[in-house]
Amino acid sequence: MISKQIFSPTLLLDGQKCKANIIRMLDKAKANNISLRPHFKTHQSAKVGEWFKEQGIHKAAVSSMKMAKYFAKNGWGDLLLAFPFNIHEAPAANELNNLMTLNILLVSAEIIPVLEKTLEKPLNVFVEIDTGYERTGIDVNDLEAIDLILNEISDSEKLIFKGFQIHNGHTYLKGKDIIEKIHLKSLQQLKTLKERYIKQFPHLIISLGDTPACSVSNNFEGVDEIRPGNFVFYDLVQWQTGSCSIEDIAVALAAPIVFKNEKKNTVTVHGGAVHLSKDFYVGEEGEKVFGLPVELMGDTWSEPIAGGAVIALSQEHGTVKLPKEWISKFNIGDFIGILPAHSCLASQLQPYFITTAAEQFEIMPK
Amino acid sequence: MISKQIFSPTLLLDGQKCKANIIRMLDKAKANNISLRPHFKTHQSAKVGEWFKEQGIHKAAVSSMKMAKYFAKNGWGDLLLAFPFNIHEAPAANELNNLMTLNILLVSAEIIPVLEKTLEKPLNVFVEIDTGYERTGIDVNDLEAIDLILNEISDSEKLIFKGFQIHNGHTYLKGKDIIEKIHLKSLQQLKTLKERYIKQFPHLIISLGDTPACSVSNNFEGVDEIRPGNFVFYDLVQWQTGSCSIEDIAVALAAPIVFKNEKKNTVTVHGGAVHLSKDFYVGEEGEKVFGLPVELMGDTWSEPIAGGAVIALSQEHGTVKLPKEWISKFNIGDFIGILPAHSCLASQLQPYFITTAAEQFEIMPK
Repeated sequence: MISKQIFSPTLLLDGQKCKANIIRMLDKAKANNISLRPHFKTHQSAKVGEWFKEQGIHKAAVSSMKMAKYFAKNGWGDLLLAFPFNIHEAPAANELNNLMTLNILLVSAEIIPVLEKTLEKPLNVFVEIDTGYERTGIDVNDLEAIDLILNEISDSEKLIFKGFQIHNGHTYLKGKDIIEKIHLKSLQQLKTLKERYIKQFPHLIISLGDTPACSVSNNFEGVDEIRPGNFVFYDLVQWQTGSCSIEDIAVALAAPIVFKNEKKNTVTVHGGAVHLSKDFYVGEEGEKVFGLPVELMGDTWSEPIAGGAVIALSQEHGTVKLPKEWISKFNIGDFIGILPAHSCLASQLQPYFITTAAEQFEIMPK
Repeated sequence: MISKQIFSPTLLLDGQKCKANIIRMLDKAKANNISLRPHFKTHQSAKVGEWFKEQGIHKAAVSSMKMAKYFAKNGWGDLLLAFPFNIHEAPAANELNNLMTLNILLVSAEIIPVLEKTLEKPLNVFVEIDTGYERTGIDVNDLEAIDLILNEISDSEKLIFKGFQIHNGHTYLKGKDIIEKIHLKSLQQLKTLKERYIKQFPHLIISLGDTPACSVSNNFEGVDEIRPGNFVFYDLVQWQTGSCSIEDIAVALAAPIVFKNEKKNTVTVHGGAVHLSKDFYVGEEGEKVFGLPVELMGDTWSEPIAGGAVIALSQEHGTVKLPKEWISKFNIGDFIGILPAHSCLASQLQPYFITTAAEQFEIMPK
């Protein structure tokens, strides 16, 4: 089936796996009595968004103003722009906020005066809190800074404080036990924070979201909303982390073999950094792994070919190591599947997915 | 000037630097009595292509069929698809070949019968030879395989043998002396090859092309055509290699500062893997460097800020280490420039360049 419709490198999307990933995360949210605001930076596709709507989900997170505009245009009425607000985009935020429920993220009080001048309607804001990732956000222990920004938001007639957003990105590339430990420490810190501010802001929510902790943990005490993104497809980095099984990975790059090197037991595919990104995980022997080869079979794909790996990527070339018997099995012109190291970056590089039901799903243009 | 027209991460293109890079490479080609077929995978922009046309260049190389179609549509009449031919694209090649001079690259004789069936007009072919990079191509010492493919091409009424293509990608990330050594060894091997086949194919050409050797060497004995690409912009990887000076780098990402961490002496910008790619070079202390910060000044930018570096990238976030005095100098909302580690991948991620003359140059859509 696959070979009939594709001619060049194409990202395949297994709808069954993807929908199962969505339902599994939603079931966990329901079981914990919290809401799910999926992050759409991974799929960036209106059609995949529809699969969430079918499950009754009507709010999402995005990582750029461009993505907010794209999903607003595609019928999403409640979006959180989950990136420290860029003040140059205040006019764009105002426009969107006049049409739908936009939520933005603040990490400092500095830009509040500009927002106030620009906004025509009150805008929902979250404050980003850092509980250990140390990328962005106000340190959870810096109560002085938190007091300051919350007071400025309170004083503003244009801003509505919605709650605290936390992203524990330091759960990535760790084992399950460490993920759980980081997550529980964060929950404890957020509980203290919530207790401190709940009287002043009785409706404040805690929005937490990283795919590893949301996949691995069953403890969400004090959390009101989870915001994972990658779980919709998962990938090899998540698999290595222990967040998913290899069968849960819902995307694979179909790449044509253009060269065989029987001496080195490698094949070269048209499938490079412009299709998979240069992201990798570190294999058991310290080697970079940019993807794992799978056999494309009708409307799905096999487990990874044992002993196979994408060992090098340049702009358009991918070098795939394979066991000897597979080298002779494959011919030049055959398509091979590649599970990506990082599905968010691989998706973002493509114009569309081809689903295993042979539909074409647009991905947000660059 | 810059702050007046941009609101979000934008790739700036310094036209003066870029045009100087084009002229310098063309002058070298002329001085060596060889022709320049620039590789357009780096800029992927019809408007940058025009700057080559202004210098009298009317042939180019591309790395995908999509790119061949894009430049053909934009008036290029002689293109080399410099990637091992993907047989599923034979119908597309036939269509283009009916309209203009298309050249393709073969690495094995296997796909010749399919090409013959599909083509309506004779098609120019190059054969890829490997002189040590070991990515794709027929080993320069495997005369049996070379004889075989050349005989099959000769026997075909639909294929015209144009010559040998070589890409010595193993010159990357090396010092000037090693680049020269690799290059001279390759020249010697290609001389022997040319002597062997020149009687059978009196018009065969040697097309060689990697930016490091084309930038560093002055010896092109036996070469007929050079095919570098990255030199149009250069980048930090090329700078580290010794192919260019830091002032030759013609693109910089303008990224807004959204967060400051005065304890860690870092700022966070909206400028991540979706803007710069995850490519990096390894710094003097073994650290990953994803880019170097520069100060944006009117219609150009400064040298890199001493002691600064982009030390981490996630999907949309870039973490920039800066000396203390610069942390206080910059405010949230300021745009900072970032010289990319790899300009080909950074360009390909953008919808357009903004030139320092305030023009918008489309980049090929994904």
